Amino acid sequence: MTGRGGDRVAESGQTKAPLTGGPVIILVEPQLGENIGMAARAMFNCGLGELRLVRPRDGWPSTQARRAATGAACVVEDARVFETTAEAVVDLNHVMAASARRRDMVQRVLTPRAAGIELNRLMASGARTGVLFGPERQGLDNDDMALAEAAIEAPLNPAFSSLNLSQAVLLVAYEWLIAGDETPAEILTEGASRPASKADLLGLFDHLEGELDKCGFLRVREKRPVMVRNIRNIFQRARLMEHEVRALRGIIACLVSREK
Amino acid sequence: MTGRGGDRVAESGQTKAPLTGGPVIILVEPQLGENIGMAARAMFNCGLGELRLVRPRDGWPSTQARRAATGAACVVEDARVFETTAEAVVDLNHVMAASARRRDMVQRVLTPRAAGIELNRLMASGARTGVLFGPERQGLDNDDMALAEAAIEAPLNPAFSSLNLSQAVLLVAYEWLIAGDETPAEILTEGASRPASKADLLGLFDHLEGELDKCGFLRVREKRPVMVRNIRNIFQRARLMEHEVRALRGIIACLVSREK
Repeated sequence: MTGRGGDRVAESGQTKAPLTGGPVIILVEPQLGENIGMAARAMFNCGLGELRLVRPRDGWPSTQARRAATGAACVVEDARVFETTAEAVVDLNHVMAASARRRDMVQRVLTPRAAGIELNRLMASGARTGVLFGPERQGLDNDDMALAEAAIEAPLNPAFSSLNLSQAVLLVAYEWLIAGDETPAEILTEGASRPASKADLLGLFDHLEGELDKCGFLRVREKRPVMVRNIRNIFQRARLMEHEVRALRGIIACLVSREK
Repeated sequence: MTGRGGDRVAESGQTKAPLTGGPVIILVEPQLGENIGMAARAMFNCGLGELRLVRPRDGWPSTQARRAATGAACVVEDARVFETTAEAVVDLNHVMAASARRRDMVQRVLTPRAAGIELNRLMASGARTGVLFGPERQGLDNDDMALAEAAIEAPLNPAFSSLNLSQAVLLVAYEWLIAGDETPAEILTEGASRPASKADLLGLFDHLEGELDKCGFLRVREKRPVMVRNIRNIFQRARLMEHEVRALRGIIACLVSREK
């Protein structure tokens, strides 16, 4: 699955720079280099470029991380390492935390979608933001949670809600990206062709119905109107292109000629 | 990051069954068992349970797939293998395709969000649906794309839009889940406490402002009203709990007693 985006970055793909101003992703005590690399890839897929690591278990730099990042190796190479979570967030204005379990704390809990919208709003106001993610198994501890203003929790399958670390990063980064994206929900790829006009369609209907009259398909007079409408609806629904109408008329002509 | 969902499945977590009726996920010529397992995990995170594989490169079953699936091993174990993509979709009513690149085809292209909404709508009408995903590098070929009614493309960073296979599966499964989810965008976890009433707040304000009058903090008469409003706004914004108001009043009393 590949983007057709480009509202915020040139479609040419010549720029390799991440979109600026988005949230910093902060992984606290990540265990597997592969997960760090996959998280970096997910970040870059969504236009994020600033990765911070707090006490990565297997040290840093990590060959596994760089390999798993594939084309997002730049994000891994630019990652900064911190001794404490507090040091990793000190220059930010607003911090949220992807939470692993409910705590005995009074805290705002947002869906990833609501968090993506809020992170966009904060960015627009000039604030620097970040999102904390805990270690693979345990999640963030309560002291790290208390560094955040809000928790993010996805309403997943309660029977199996534990996301892989890089998948959790993807959901938050994706919702941040989509909240600021204006790609239309649906388009029709048209290649070099143009949508058929109603004149094209009516020409097709006349052609088809004329041949169907000749061959006797529409011979029952009282059923003819409803049959014609049903056939027209099939082709109306298909949202035909100009060249497709020409192809269908060619098909009709060819079928008629074989009948002789 | 963990779900707080439960609208569709019991919060108890006792049921390990996936939600029924959601789209079948069909991986065409997947290469790495690990990606298949991670895709199964992402599916189960989002309540999907039916996985189909067309010509998996390294054969089937796969130890790597089962290991990568962690708690979603049941999805891997129940996966069915097919020789052709056509055989894998033959019992379905509607098929979409996660597309790797633009083609010279006239086809509807949906965002993952729009696809999630449409897949929910189709499910509600009783239709069986599926989503095709191509091999890791190439994506789906044109013949497989022509088995689908619509393509799904995420508006990602155009400079680096290639998603890992399991990440692509996550986005589609997640958008399907969220389109049918009614979790409120924001809640406040409250533990055993209750939100403070305005009476609690006004009691706190009286207490604090009385002490600030005594210690001289509000001594400039013409500035007093605006200072009081600013201080009240801080605590209004914090949306305090009953027990937090009590704690703040204890803090004020303690600070006053130390001042003596």
